[in-house]
Amino acid sequence: MMKLYDYARSSAAYRVRIALNLKNVPVAVQTVHLRKDGGEQHRPAYEAVNPQRLVPALDVDGDVLTQSLAIIEYLEETHPTPSLLPGTAKDRARIRAMALTIAADIHPIQNLRVLEHLKAQTGCNDEAAFAWARHWIELGFMALEAFVTRAPKQGLYCYGDTVTLADVLLVPQMNNARRFQCDLTKFPRLTAIDTRLRALPAFHKAAPEQQPGFNA
Amino acid sequence: MMKLYDYARSSAAYRVRIALNLKNVPVAVQTVHLRKDGGEQHRPAYEAVNPQRLVPALDVDGDVLTQSLAIIEYLEETHPTPSLLPGTAKDRARIRAMALTIAADIHPIQNLRVLEHLKAQTGCNDEAAFAWARHWIELGFMALEAFVTRAPKQGLYCYGDTVTLADVLLVPQMNNARRFQCDLTKFPRLTAIDTRLRALPAFHKAAPEQQPGFNA
Repeated sequence: MMKLYDYARSSAAYRVRIALNLKNVPVAVQTVHLRKDGGEQHRPAYEAVNPQRLVPALDVDGDVLTQSLAIIEYLEETHPTPSLLPGTAKDRARIRAMALTIAADIHPIQNLRVLEHLKAQTGCNDEAAFAWARHWIELGFMALEAFVTRAPKQGLYCYGDTVTLADVLLVPQMNNARRFQCDLTKFPRLTAIDTRLRALPAFHKAAPEQQPGFNA
Repeated sequence: MMKLYDYARSSAAYRVRIALNLKNVPVAVQTVHLRKDGGEQHRPAYEAVNPQRLVPALDVDGDVLTQSLAIIEYLEETHPTPSLLPGTAKDRARIRAMALTIAADIHPIQNLRVLEHLKAQTGCNDEAAFAWARHWIELGFMALEAFVTRAPKQGLYCYGDTVTLADVLLVPQMNNARRFQCDLTKFPRLTAIDTRLRALPAFHKAAPEQQPGFNA
């Protein structure tokens, strides 16, 4: 069985949990606690697993795969049904662009390690760090709302009526947006899609608060 | 013919130029000057092309694709030879993880718009903004150097003797690292690979200083 190096509150790990559930792939879970004892991800034993010292990582028969999007593309190739990248090459390009708008241009700029470095380097306080996070989330969501609204496939989710990679990325990022108290009334399409997605069992089961280690 | 919305000094556009050259796909180029008149990417005409107001974007028969990695995956699907994602599903996962280490965890945190916002929000000076950029580049390169060193395929480039997506991402990021005066002696493998790659015609022709608008 595959083993997922996981942390309940990591939104990158949350993406992989959703994808595993959608594709009905069982995994063993090993928790890497990012906030305990200076962060378990910085221990040599975990650095040997993932030199980036981030979660998630997925051990497949002793080979460790890293980076949530690379892991999900691997799952898509090895467990193609249901497809998270359906349609034509252009459809897939649009779905991947929505996913990357979150994975490259929102989440990395607002994650824990960046906010901690921001405070350490500039001496700013928690409120300023939250404002930084909100700025990047709202800027990215403005573009994402436009991508969804202009997409050639319209429907219940980000790209038509089928759950895609874009949806897998959206829900964890919306969770972060609520944590940083973003004004989500500016993004009615994203908010409606997120509500529909969170009602699906694969998304519900993957939520941080549903994980055994959530309150640890 | 496809049309590339391009800016010579954009490292995300630089990636797409390399991939287009490797796959021998001709394009028409439309320059979007990111530093002229407050940034041409913020004009309504360009926002209609790409609501994220970033380059690159690729117009394929009137359909606009965005996000450099999504564009390169599209080129990989539609022009599969030479492959930038060769090998098995696990090989591809490792190549994509290296690419995403740059595309998600280095470049977005050190790009122009983030440095400008850092200065505007915290009042820090150019030197502090450069130190911020160096921090994220060197942290990411430490992991990337380990990924390359530990990869099951060893050779001339990031993943064996074939040019892959990881190499397409490496060269523009190394260019940024030199601009921010990172200490590259810490990354001997990456430096050696970058030197080999820059000697290849597809990489040389894509370099910022080779573009017509470089000094504009």
